Amino acid sequence: MPNPLIPGNAVIGQAGGPTAVINQSLVGVVQGLLAARAGVDAQTGQAVASASPIRKILGMRHGVRGLVKGDFFEFTDIDRDRLERIARTPSAALGSTRDKPDAEYCQRIFEACKQHEVRYFFYIGGNDSSDTCRLVNETARSAGYELRCFHIPKTVDNDLMGSDHCPGFPSAARFVAMACMADFMDNISLPGIKINVVMGRHAGFLTAASALARRADRLESSTDGPQLIYLPEVAFDMDRFVGDVESCYAKKGRCHIAVSEGIQDKDHTPIAAKLFEGETDAHGNMQLSGTGALGDALAEYLKKRLTPAGGKPPRVRADTFGYIQRCFPDCSPLDAREARAAGREAARLATSGDLDGSVAIVRTSPIEPGALYAARLERIDLSVVAAKTRHMPAEFIEGHNNVSRKFLDYCRPLVGELPVLERL
Amino acid sequence: MPNPLIPGNAVIGQAGGPTAVINQSLVGVVQGLLAARAGVDAQTGQAVASASPIRKILGMRHGVRGLVKGDFFEFTDIDRDRLERIARTPSAALGSTRDKPDAEYCQRIFEACKQHEVRYFFYIGGNDSSDTCRLVNETARSAGYELRCFHIPKTVDNDLMGSDHCPGFPSAARFVAMACMADFMDNISLPGIKINVVMGRHAGFLTAASALARRADRLESSTDGPQLIYLPEVAFDMDRFVGDVESCYAKKGRCHIAVSEGIQDKDHTPIAAKLFEGETDAHGNMQLSGTGALGDALAEYLKKRLTPAGGKPPRVRADTFGYIQRCFPDCSPLDAREARAAGREAARLATSGDLDGSVAIVRTSPIEPGALYAARLERIDLSVVAAKTRHMPAEFIEGHNNVSRKFLDYCRPLVGELPVLERL
Repeated sequence: MPNPLIPGNAVIGQAGGPTAVINQSLVGVVQGLLAARAGVDAQTGQAVASASPIRKILGMRHGVRGLVKGDFFEFTDIDRDRLERIARTPSAALGSTRDKPDAEYCQRIFEACKQHEVRYFFYIGGNDSSDTCRLVNETARSAGYELRCFHIPKTVDNDLMGSDHCPGFPSAARFVAMACMADFMDNISLPGIKINVVMGRHAGFLTAASALARRADRLESSTDGPQLIYLPEVAFDMDRFVGDVESCYAKKGRCHIAVSEGIQDKDHTPIAAKLFEGETDAHGNMQLSGTGALGDALAEYLKKRLTPAGGKPPRVRADTFGYIQRCFPDCSPLDAREARAAGREAARLATSGDLDGSVAIVRTSPIEPGALYAARLERIDLSVVAAKTRHMPAEFIEGHNNVSRKFLDYCRPLVGELPVLERL
Repeated sequence: MPNPLIPGNAVIGQAGGPTAVINQSLVGVVQGLLAARAGVDAQTGQAVASASPIRKILGMRHGVRGLVKGDFFEFTDIDRDRLERIARTPSAALGSTRDKPDAEYCQRIFEACKQHEVRYFFYIGGNDSSDTCRLVNETARSAGYELRCFHIPKTVDNDLMGSDHCPGFPSAARFVAMACMADFMDNISLPGIKINVVMGRHAGFLTAASALARRADRLESSTDGPQLIYLPEVAFDMDRFVGDVESCYAKKGRCHIAVSEGIQDKDHTPIAAKLFEGETDAHGNMQLSGTGALGDALAEYLKKRLTPAGGKPPRVRADTFGYIQRCFPDCSPLDAREARAAGREAARLATSGDLDGSVAIVRTSPIEPGALYAARLERIDLSVVAAKTRHMPAEFIEGHNNVSRKFLDYCRPLVGELPVLERL
């Protein structure tokens, strides 16, 4: 027999780097809770027997920071059209936070939940956010306080455990593919060596998505750009890098390169840290986004190494895609649907019994050429996803500077339709 | 009585930085010439009496460089579906060039025209390309060789004389507006100081387009980001810049800034040249695109100046939109249509009499709120546009860090529909 649902308020927060669809998840949770309040099943829309336990639906401003301060936006009576407009807006509508709560901070979060009669806690974010969710859940359980805690995955890095992929990644991958597609044409048109730096501190999924820029019949061959793809999962060697570029440039008179901001050497030292001094955060992580420094340093290095004695340096250019890759307002339609559905499912699960967890996307179709994509949502324990990092599996990587056919079959259904470009 | 048209071949070239719609102009010229060959009027499709003078339709590979080498792509019998796919592909399908021909180079171009029986010369590009067109035209005229020369405008910088705006600008402006729109939401979500560096060495039109990111009812107030916009047309003062940012940051706890790569001080020294040493080209121009150096240097400067004594520096981030702003595959539909029409009109004019020139876009609707955009194409003399640079007129600029309502009324009809974002 399910645990009787305790009446109370619900809070929803957003944390970490924003994405193009994190507001879809927010709106999904709100819609799910509004459905529960109205006495209907959040996914089917059918009437349910039990009385609704949900009182107020509160959004935390800037994540748990807003919760402990009592800074809320109330969704309970929000206009439905406005809610739809919020869903279609990239970035975190409630505001985000980089706070990583420790045990003491979690205690304050828990106290705030008690103070505001919160019984339903939803947190949309990456692995740090799922860990916050887990800690808050455990703090409440130790205190014997009924608090349903749900994490809804969100990350452009795609580095969460338990899911085939994470909401946010398909839209960012779409941007990277489209940007690389057009930039490769630019590179053919005005030849030279071009480096594009893509987000992803520990996981290379987003950089790998650059391979979707290749023409469909040349995906694996790396005839089309990017001809060279460097991921954090593969030890980066400066000499080998120079050799790769030199050989491509000698053959074609041009070279198109995608590099993850998180590339590291065999001792796991970030290449960024080896090339220049940068800002570091409270956790000792070097600032990788919001600067063009890595791309510029790699370009300088290539110019120096590839200038023939007494000759002119080759044309080397570097762009860093920056924050726009995570929030460009042209999302993958699949991503928007899945992000919304994951939020709604979290609300449905939280209001259907004594459940906590995270909502994972499980692909039910095979990863192979021509497969029709299908997936379902599944509740997984918070401990599966909390504070863990998923890397590109070996089967998605080919050699030291390419991705596999399997990765392309994995990624292509996620990003939506891409333009078909033509060459003379 | 019109000059009898001399039978011969036609050549088409593309030059300078590529755009999202330069291939629309290429395809426009080809379609116009194919229509002339078929004995129909290029714009109306109606049968014309005179026999067609056009024999082969040749594309120069990498602009005039391909012409002097005899490196051509022949369009005469190209598949029409393929032509449409080329039109929709960003970047220069024929390849581009940065060559700026002098008198001697123009002589070689002219010799190549004679050798390949070229009587119709089309060049799609910016002010340097129109100057090439003019020089080639004069060389041919001096030699008594009939050569119709047409320039078709193309530039994301929008800095050509004689036109209301240039093909390529509306699509790049659309990208800048959409990127700033989303990035402003990102900046609200995770507050800090954010600099976005936009293309434009001498003209600020593209940077100014960032103002379209503001919510429609807040366009002028700069309540919405970017709150500060810096153009090359207004002398940039480092102290005043720091003061602007400090005041916005003090008021809002965040600041969203758009900066042109070409900002310069009161003595017209590029700020980039003052802040760091960079690569310079054969003409002494400093490399501004394909590097994040200016954004990073401004960010460092702000961090240093805005760190309170004994305190932590504010969060300052910089992104440089880079090459993707000129070729992102999501063009303005108006831009695509106009670029195509300009190419077609050049072909029609060149095959209708003794004419040379450039094709200008003339706006026939008023620049005011709510006006329905209308424009026509007009032939202008090559000397009007050749080697000249158009700057943002004073009426488009407001103060030292904003654009005027008039500029917004000018720019908004060009970029196509923008997403409507919602805030809580």
